[in-house]
Amino acid sequence: MKAKVHVTLKNGVLDPEGKAVQHALEALGFGGINEIRKGKFIEIDLLEDDSAKAHQHIDAMCRQLLANTVIENYSIDIVE
Amino acid sequence: MKAKVHVTLKNGVLDPEGKAVQHALEALGFGGINEIRKGKFIEIDLLEDDSAKAHQHIDAMCRQLLANTVIENYSIDIVE
Repeated sequence: MKAKVHVTLKNGVLDPEGKAVQHALEALGFGGINEIRKGKFIEIDLLEDDSAKAHQHIDAMCRQLLANTVIENYSIDIVE
Repeated sequence: MKAKVHVTLKNGVLDPEGKAVQHALEALGFGGINEIRKGKFIEIDLLEDDSAKAHQHIDAMCRQLLANTVIENYSIDIVE
């Protein structure tokens, strides 16, 4: 069972990494950028075959390690 | 015009960060993990209104800065 997890900063939380990428792109000559937010993308391949159980396991992983729920949101997509 | 960009390591390229996450999860008691691959997720908000032009700009950004095309793949989804 494979899953894709997106971890993104909550709205209103400053994103210095995104700002740095934006400035770097502007220095390269790319204009017209309103905002860039940088997040994490994690692909997890579990041995678990039951998609509900896989979702439950990954939710626990996100809360305990993958996301800092004080400042980050996460979303889980079970793929196959 | 908003876009979502995923940057992932190509197949066969070692992913030490993903391995570290896997070991950390196993140390927390999560078993049954086959593999974890870690990538980047970048949300870009452009002033450009034309989706074809926005795609073209972001493709250039990926090639020049956001992705290392020797070892990474990227995908661009124009959202709105």
